Amino acid sequence: MKHRLLPWVKRISAVGGTGVVVVALFPRVEDAYWRRRDPHRVLGDHTSSSSLSKAAHDNKKNLVVLGTGWASVSVLKHIDRDKYHVTVVSPRNYFLFTPLLPSVCAGTITSEAVTVPIRNITSYKALPMWDRIRFMWRGYLPDRVTYLYAAVTDVDPLTKTVTCRQEMNDDKAGADKSSFDLSYDVLVIGTGATTNTFNTEGVQEHCYYLKETGDATLLRQTVLRNLEKASLPTTTEEEKRRLLSFWVVGGGPTAVEVAAELQDFLHFDIVNPVHATFNQCAGYTSVNLVQSNKDLLPGYPKKIRDFALQQMERSKVEVITEARATKVTRDSISVYDKATKSTRDFPYGLIVWATGVEPGPLIRRLMSKLPEQSHYRSLKTDSQCQVLGAPGVYAIGDCADIDLQAEYEYKLGKNFGNLHNKYSAIGPPNDKRLTMKGLGKLVDRVKELSEHSVSAPMSKIYHTLSERYTNSNSNPDDAEGISQSELQDIAQKHLERQKILPPTAQVAHQQGEYLAKLLNQPKIDPVSSTWTFDHGPTFEFADMGQLVYVGGHMAALSIPASQDLSVSWDGSMTNYLWHAAYFGMLESTSARTELFFDWCKSSLFGRSTALDAICSSDNHIEELQRSEKAITNTPTRKWWKKIGL
Amino acid sequence: MKHRLLPWVKRISAVGGTGVVVVALFPRVEDAYWRRRDPHRVLGDHTSSSSLSKAAHDNKKNLVVLGTGWASVSVLKHIDRDKYHVTVVSPRNYFLFTPLLPSVCAGTITSEAVTVPIRNITSYKALPMWDRIRFMWRGYLPDRVTYLYAAVTDVDPLTKTVTCRQEMNDDKAGADKSSFDLSYDVLVIGTGATTNTFNTEGVQEHCYYLKETGDATLLRQTVLRNLEKASLPTTTEEEKRRLLSFWVVGGGPTAVEVAAELQDFLHFDIVNPVHATFNQCAGYTSVNLVQSNKDLLPGYPKKIRDFALQQMERSKVEVITEARATKVTRDSISVYDKATKSTRDFPYGLIVWATGVEPGPLIRRLMSKLPEQSHYRSLKTDSQCQVLGAPGVYAIGDCADIDLQAEYEYKLGKNFGNLHNKYSAIGPPNDKRLTMKGLGKLVDRVKELSEHSVSAPMSKIYHTLSERYTNSNSNPDDAEGISQSELQDIAQKHLERQKILPPTAQVAHQQGEYLAKLLNQPKIDPVSSTWTFDHGPTFEFADMGQLVYVGGHMAALSIPASQDLSVSWDGSMTNYLWHAAYFGMLESTSARTELFFDWCKSSLFGRSTALDAICSSDNHIEELQRSEKAITNTPTRKWWKKIGL
Ligand SMILES: Cc1cc2nc3c(=O)[nH]c(=O)nc-3n(C[C@H](O)[C@H](O)[C@H](O)COP(=O)(O)OP(=O)(O)OC[C@H]3O[C@@H](n4cnc5c(N)ncnc54)[C@H](O)[C@@H]3O)c2cc1C
Ligand SMILES: Cc1cc2nc3c(=O)[nH]c(=O)nc-3n(C[C@H](O)[C@H](O)[C@H](O)COP(=O)(O)OP(=O)(O)OC[C@H]3O[C@@H](n4cnc5c(N)ncnc54)[C@H](O)[C@@H]3O)c2cc1C
Repeated sequence: MKHRLLPWVKRISAVGGTGVVVVALFPRVEDAYWRRRDPHRVLGDHTSSSSLSKAAHDNKKNLVVLGTGWASVSVLKHIDRDKYHVTVVSPRNYFLFTPLLPSVCAGTITSEAVTVPIRNITSYKALPMWDRIRFMWRGYLPDRVTYLYAAVTDVDPLTKTVTCRQEMNDDKAGADKSSFDLSYDVLVIGTGATTNTFNTEGVQEHCYYLKETGDATLLRQTVLRNLEKASLPTTTEEEKRRLLSFWVVGGGPTAVEVAAELQDFLHFDIVNPVHATFNQCAGYTSVNLVQSNKDLLPGYPKKIRDFALQQMERSKVEVITEARATKVTRDSISVYDKATKSTRDFPYGLIVWATGVEPGPLIRRLMSKLPEQSHYRSLKTDSQCQVLGAPGVYAIGDCADIDLQAEYEYKLGKNFGNLHNKYSAIGPPNDKRLTMKGLGKLVDRVKELSEHSVSAPMSKIYHTLSERYTNSNSNPDDAEGISQSELQDIAQKHLERQKILPPTAQVAHQQGEYLAKLLNQPKIDPVSSTWTFDHGPTFEFADMGQLVYVGGHMAALSIPASQDLSVSWDGSMTNYLWHAAYFGMLESTSARTELFFDWCKSSLFGRSTALDAICSSDNHIEELQRSEKAITNTPTRKWWKKIGL
Repeated sequence: MKHRLLPWVKRISAVGGTGVVVVALFPRVEDAYWRRRDPHRVLGDHTSSSSLSKAAHDNKKNLVVLGTGWASVSVLKHIDRDKYHVTVVSPRNYFLFTPLLPSVCAGTITSEAVTVPIRNITSYKALPMWDRIRFMWRGYLPDRVTYLYAAVTDVDPLTKTVTCRQEMNDDKAGADKSSFDLSYDVLVIGTGATTNTFNTEGVQEHCYYLKETGDATLLRQTVLRNLEKASLPTTTEEEKRRLLSFWVVGGGPTAVEVAAELQDFLHFDIVNPVHATFNQCAGYTSVNLVQSNKDLLPGYPKKIRDFALQQMERSKVEVITEARATKVTRDSISVYDKATKSTRDFPYGLIVWATGVEPGPLIRRLMSKLPEQSHYRSLKTDSQCQVLGAPGVYAIGDCADIDLQAEYEYKLGKNFGNLHNKYSAIGPPNDKRLTMKGLGKLVDRVKELSEHSVSAPMSKIYHTLSERYTNSNSNPDDAEGISQSELQDIAQKHLERQKILPPTAQVAHQQGEYLAKLLNQPKIDPVSSTWTFDHGPTFEFADMGQLVYVGGHMAALSIPASQDLSVSWDGSMTNYLWHAAYFGMLESTSARTELFFDWCKSSLFGRSTALDAICSSDNHIEELQRSEKAITNTPTRKWWKKIGL
């Protein structure tokens, strides 16, 4: 046996060893190479003036990218730096892998595992080895991506500039220093969305959101602080129960995962019978989830919705469905039960508000400038992700919606004047119809549009309409005509699948990649040397399925192609899959290493119960306020007010 | 070759494998055992009423321990829980491994690697396997250590109570709820010391201290924030240079290590020619260290002092010796040069103040209650660490000094009335002498004292004095007598070595262990059943040497026995030793694993440059203020004021 195995062990180690040596040596060879080519320069310190970067800059365009989230980072990874001078502006100098943020709340993993510094992402060293070899071959380095630590407060599509705020200086003297403008040829907005409180009273003052690593840290601290307070001799039974009532409002994946992680933390590490950390708290803790629908995880397949509900109940999360949190005060949360139509107040120790997203103030400000956007509640783009009414401005990820309906109406409406008026040509008001002649013109216009872009839905609409037109061609003034609803049905039939893209990392990521590829292939007008992109493909979302952790080492998975699939058997299989999938998706080796280590550590040693002492410096609260004055912390409402958004 | 190796490989794996299996299975066997003994109870959930803990509580004493630092934790680890009901009170619910805190500032390691939750330290599961087997043998569990998350605001040695503050509630209604009293039989104070600003103007407002993990995090954030600001297009050259001027005030090990870590971070990760993160900042950064002495590391052997200075200069830290920081304003630090007697102002981006320690307000309040302490600037204990003037109160670590001089004067003075008056029996005021008769009485008293305790110095003093008395015994009223200075010289000769114990973790740790052992061996009076300890040994400090990291992968080591020893050759040897030593000292397996991982990670991937976004919740500053109102953050002056210290 050993004689048969040994040669193989040898061979495999030889190949593996060589691989390791090559990978380990490559950076050294590379450094030496670049140093030899330009001894005065150092690798990475290649500004556009470097002799190592491509000389011809004249025909490069300025690309400004806003934000460092899923959407923007995906653009940055795929954009061709030989075609663009790339500048990223964001008050967050790292990419955040949001799907694992709920695990940070409970201390299962640390925030280092889910953050990747943007300067690492855009550095030459972050390119795959293969690309780096290609650059060595070509003999010049890709241009640097400039990252600016600032928040964007205004976008002006007319002058093609964005205004950036670099600090929150309150005093007037520093006001001009604290802002600067950037001009762009192409702008990509990927500033995400903010938590929607539905204007519920008291949410802003008393609830926690979960969007940033700091949120997760603060949440964990509060849970631990409450546990500590509950263990004091002066704490009454009632107060103890209050302190240890943790509430989550919302029923989407984030809410479910937070509730699951909190419950895991309490169950496995805190009041666990074997590890004895806070055992006086056993019997007093509760995790409650308020969801307005009948089910958890709306939009997920039925099987998964059922599984999630059942698993939540099994791990003793109190799920209150068909209920709405209507008000939050310092001491209690009011929950309205839709079935009984009654409201009950519950004392709470902590509330996590995770009910969905709405556009942030930058987006609202931009929308208010564009008449094309005035009817909408969120920023609308065409199917190439270009903001309606703002040529050269692209918006991707949570901050915008592709709305082909809007595009359709916008593009067609532009040609035909107000469609509404056209329709009213014949028939009574509630059965407005377009004459066949009108339809003919419409078909011509749609044909033009669908030829101009290879938009699949547009050309499909053309075919359906022209067929209809040809069939009724006998009488151009056919009283039948085509009704508004018919027209809309035809359009919607082809647009529907793309219309409602959920605000997920998956969509943002795919849009980023799509957009980079689109922008990498400009059609350059030989005369005016303007760049256009509408010959390019439109965005098509490929649903890769959904993964959600439901607690107690159970996860649920749905892959759209193969119908819904949830390995509920022991759950551990799907749970491993869940881990493996996220491990794979996290593209930074350093973060991956951290993630793997954190998982091992928390499963071996349990999660830590150490509270952070904030600071011993006398000035620490000022320092924290200064840091809030610094441009980190974008998404708070107070912050927006301060920078005048 | 392989045939000779293989059997050994087999044998070793067999033994190792069995070991691993035993260690892995033991907890399960253990859990099963305890569950069987008491099916209604769960392991660890053994309050004093548990049938599994020793029944006889009547003759147990209440031990209250203040603080969760080096000193207190060392007591907790060694105290016999069969003799004491142990309660720990501290606003920090974890132990902090301070020697590695400077590495956290630069992000070389994370704060998880240097913190161990106190509840883990005191849990049954934290006992060594051997002890746990012993408890299984005996059939009962050790009593739980009660940890209370509160700050102590007052100690009353008369009523033997401590007052604890559990939260910083400002409103009057909650005032009675926010405090509680604990009574003790034995009290151990290990509340550490605070940073000494020497009342330098502006330090409190503008400088950072380095005592807690939060300090390290804030420091790292500020360095990164300054780097980001320096990289903005609107930042002038001058401003850039200011933002990137990092200052450290102090010349002790903490100051040196912080400067070294900051410089390493800047050199290896930030403006490093190979990794390109903030290369626009190259040439603008500086790390400056202001030290009032001629040397760094006062108190260390000369060879190490020289090595440190030389190494700091080699790694381009600007060391300004014989200088004092005299004032700090918002924009500049004033440095007074002792040689030229001139003051220069320097702009700065960040100042770390690390110049030494002073007693905190709790200690000052206690001192003000004890007339025996009125002449001193710090809390004095006798050689058994008992606070002078407060029987049953022990103080160890940075918060107190053993002063045998004080003990000597106190103990002898108590018997002889004021020694001062005795001395004035003969001779002019500036050569006061004690008559030989007086000396005779003194000798009797010292004999008594030295018999009562086995205090080595005391019995040595007795021998010297009695020798002297015997020699001059011929004339009991000998006009020569003994002068105050002679008496002090004799005492000091024997006390000197122990007098000046440095405020280090080493001392605190040894004192804790010593004290636990002392308290574990009470002499119980059969009649009054009072417990006394003065028959026990006195504390003797065993200097184990010093280790200090001086940057550029170089460390210095001094072991007192073997003279000073500093492997400056390549430095890497000592550097490995430095790593190994701290790894060994960090007693928690979980923290050790984290430490090892962090070291590997930062050397493989470099330190992260991700800033933390504090929070997206609208209430986050309030939350931070609430957490400052919570009792974390003890050591700030504002905090003290709030709780009335
Ligand atoms: C806890 C949690 C769990 C989630 N789990 C999943 C999941 O499992 N699967 C999934 O597909 N999706 C998940 N999501 C959703 C997913 O995170 C978002 O859909 C995705 O982050 C959207 O990407 P984005 O780039 O549009 O915005 P974001 O990732 O939010 O990035 C926005 C960026 O813009 C920056 N920015 C904000 N304001 C400004 C300004 N004024 N100027 C400049 N920059 C600005 C921000 O700092 C940030 O860098 C989760 C979200 C959360 C919060
Ligand atoms: C950055 C740094 C590096 C260092 N490096 C070294 C080194 O390399 N080697 C070495 O030997 N020493 C080193 N030291 C010194 C060492 O840390 C101290 O000497 C040691 O911590 C003293 O231990 P302690 O238990 O007395 O106090 P601490 O460890 O400071 O603990 C004090 C405890 O008391 C608590 N407390 C404070 N106030 C109250 C109150 N009112 N009520 C209740 N509890 C309270 C605190 O929360 C804390 O838990 C270093 C110190 C620092 C700051």
